[in-house]
Amino acid sequence: MADAGVDAVLLSLGADLPWLSGYEAMPLERLTLLVVPSDAPATMVVPRLEAPRVESDDNVFSLRPWAETDDPVAIVADLVGSRSHLAISDRTWATFLLALQTALPAASWIRASLVTGPLRAVKDAAEVSALAAASRAADRVASALLAGEIALIGRSEAQVSADLGRRLVDEGHDKVNFAIVGSGPNSASPHHQPAGRWIGPGEAVVCDFGGTMAGYCSDITRTVVTGEPAPEFSELYGVLQSAQADAVASARIGVTCEQVDAAARAPITDAGFGDAFLHRTGHGIGLEEHEDPYIVVGNASTLVAGHAFSVEPGIYLDGRFGARIEDIVVTEGGGPRLLNTADRGLTVVEA
Amino acid sequence: MADAGVDAVLLSLGADLPWLSGYEAMPLERLTLLVVPSDAPATMVVPRLEAPRVESDDNVFSLRPWAETDDPVAIVADLVGSRSHLAISDRTWATFLLALQTALPAASWIRASLVTGPLRAVKDAAEVSALAAASRAADRVASALLAGEIALIGRSEAQVSADLGRRLVDEGHDKVNFAIVGSGPNSASPHHQPAGRWIGPGEAVVCDFGGTMAGYCSDITRTVVTGEPAPEFSELYGVLQSAQADAVASARIGVTCEQVDAAARAPITDAGFGDAFLHRTGHGIGLEEHEDPYIVVGNASTLVAGHAFSVEPGIYLDGRFGARIEDIVVTEGGGPRLLNTADRGLTVVEA
Repeated sequence: MADAGVDAVLLSLGADLPWLSGYEAMPLERLTLLVVPSDAPATMVVPRLEAPRVESDDNVFSLRPWAETDDPVAIVADLVGSRSHLAISDRTWATFLLALQTALPAASWIRASLVTGPLRAVKDAAEVSALAAASRAADRVASALLAGEIALIGRSEAQVSADLGRRLVDEGHDKVNFAIVGSGPNSASPHHQPAGRWIGPGEAVVCDFGGTMAGYCSDITRTVVTGEPAPEFSELYGVLQSAQADAVASARIGVTCEQVDAAARAPITDAGFGDAFLHRTGHGIGLEEHEDPYIVVGNASTLVAGHAFSVEPGIYLDGRFGARIEDIVVTEGGGPRLLNTADRGLTVVEA
Repeated sequence: MADAGVDAVLLSLGADLPWLSGYEAMPLERLTLLVVPSDAPATMVVPRLEAPRVESDDNVFSLRPWAETDDPVAIVADLVGSRSHLAISDRTWATFLLALQTALPAASWIRASLVTGPLRAVKDAAEVSALAAASRAADRVASALLAGEIALIGRSEAQVSADLGRRLVDEGHDKVNFAIVGSGPNSASPHHQPAGRWIGPGEAVVCDFGGTMAGYCSDITRTVVTGEPAPEFSELYGVLQSAQADAVASARIGVTCEQVDAAARAPITDAGFGDAFLHRTGHGIGLEEHEDPYIVVGNASTLVAGHAFSVEPGIYLDGRFGARIEDIVVTEGGGPRLLNTADRGLTVVEA
């Protein structure tokens, strides 16, 4: 807080609150918010009817339940008092921020991730273990896909997506966060929503899926082909695989995030596909699927031991086909550690 | 917008955007936002990699995709231009509101629900049909519970919750939004999170569940007992059933929301349980589980034809037991229309 020039951090929705307190706010119109002053004990303002769910410890924070006729914003304003440099969690609803700004007209505000992001981005050993376990579970689903155990041809993208989700749960995930399946021309839409399209033979199929297991997230992408691929696709895939490996290898302590992005982008640009790599190279992962550090042009922050993030370049030829390969990487003293190990070679699945 | 004194409405996360555009923003750190000026065509600012998902019609709004190296906040600020009275959707992330406030320092802001809430609260015939269909599906699950088709005794709250969720999907819901199961002393915690507690004989079990079906939400609560109830519980339940019926009957066009709340509260207070009715009487329902109109003390707005909301009084005796009864009601010319019809009498389920 001192580094960020902040007197108090206010945490509502998002992962900052469970990371710090063990309690996750319900995404409802009744405000839950932990007030963490830099110079006084923390207090959680919580709807009275949700208070029994909170396991509090007065040594860490005290509870301030509010009844239906109370004004929770006034209670927060009172706890903030004369502190005027405030940080608020990124996902707090705008409606609450606007009400707090009205109640605290002298305050200046920044997003809380400027305080919490760099702390949460560095995973301790227990967090890396949890991420590794989730990645191994996702790997088992990816390996089943590569082995042809998940039928593709003649089924809809939505059916395959449901299969991937079921398998994530069967392999130990508590919930499925997404299971993108883009086939044929849809493989060129990076965030394609799986729908009724039937998968045919000889098509590229991008499968990007992940979930939450014991609080920590998995996220993996493998692209398979349902029959002998066109030579152009094989060439594209070869470029992509090499780019992804280069970016992973570059992810060493002291390297900047944008250097890792550049390592993925260079071979793709050299091969003439630069405009077809539509997105950043990756994102941090932990309690949230997407968090600091972001592997993107313009992010000059430096990788340190314990940073965990995706490396997921993609090449998308609009209306034709696309491909993406994604693994989770942790920077360690000995170099980048790959948490995903499922095969990355171009795999033909004739199932 | 004119009534609210607003020059432009900015819609991001939440139901306002799909209600108006048919497209739901992904809850990610990449900004999706529809700019709706009062005096110019609407424009949706959307991440380039999600643009293929949007079905746009230039007669309604145009698309402004942004690439990974663009600044979406600057694009929104440019579209807003010199307009300075702005409304932003309630669930927009604080991080985006803060960035927009920095980019548009002269603007004043209100929450968009001040514009959209009263419009969305009044359901047209197609919306009432969709709500009725979702309620009937939830009724079938509730009826199965009352008929003893869902085993309770000797099972955990979490197992029963999973059963309720599966049945909601089997009955036609696209997704489960929640399935609260609170047994024994947990029945006195209104938003109890179902966990490992085993349900025993002779206990109160509050089951409050709902999901989304063809875009519209269901929400129903029934409280059952797993064996002959204590006389005190039967008395409490009788008071509650009468209060719920009174509140439903009071929900006529022209009555205020707080009058409906008072109608539920009066018999409970008269019976000496006033302090044990911890929450408001109800909430509007539609594309969201909770939306306008809220049936709560202090809401003096008047019910009109097409308002749809829950009526769900509860009585909670801390550490002992509790009960809640909830139905969805639509105000119509002929009086309140109950969308839920599952039996409300005290039901003993010896399963």
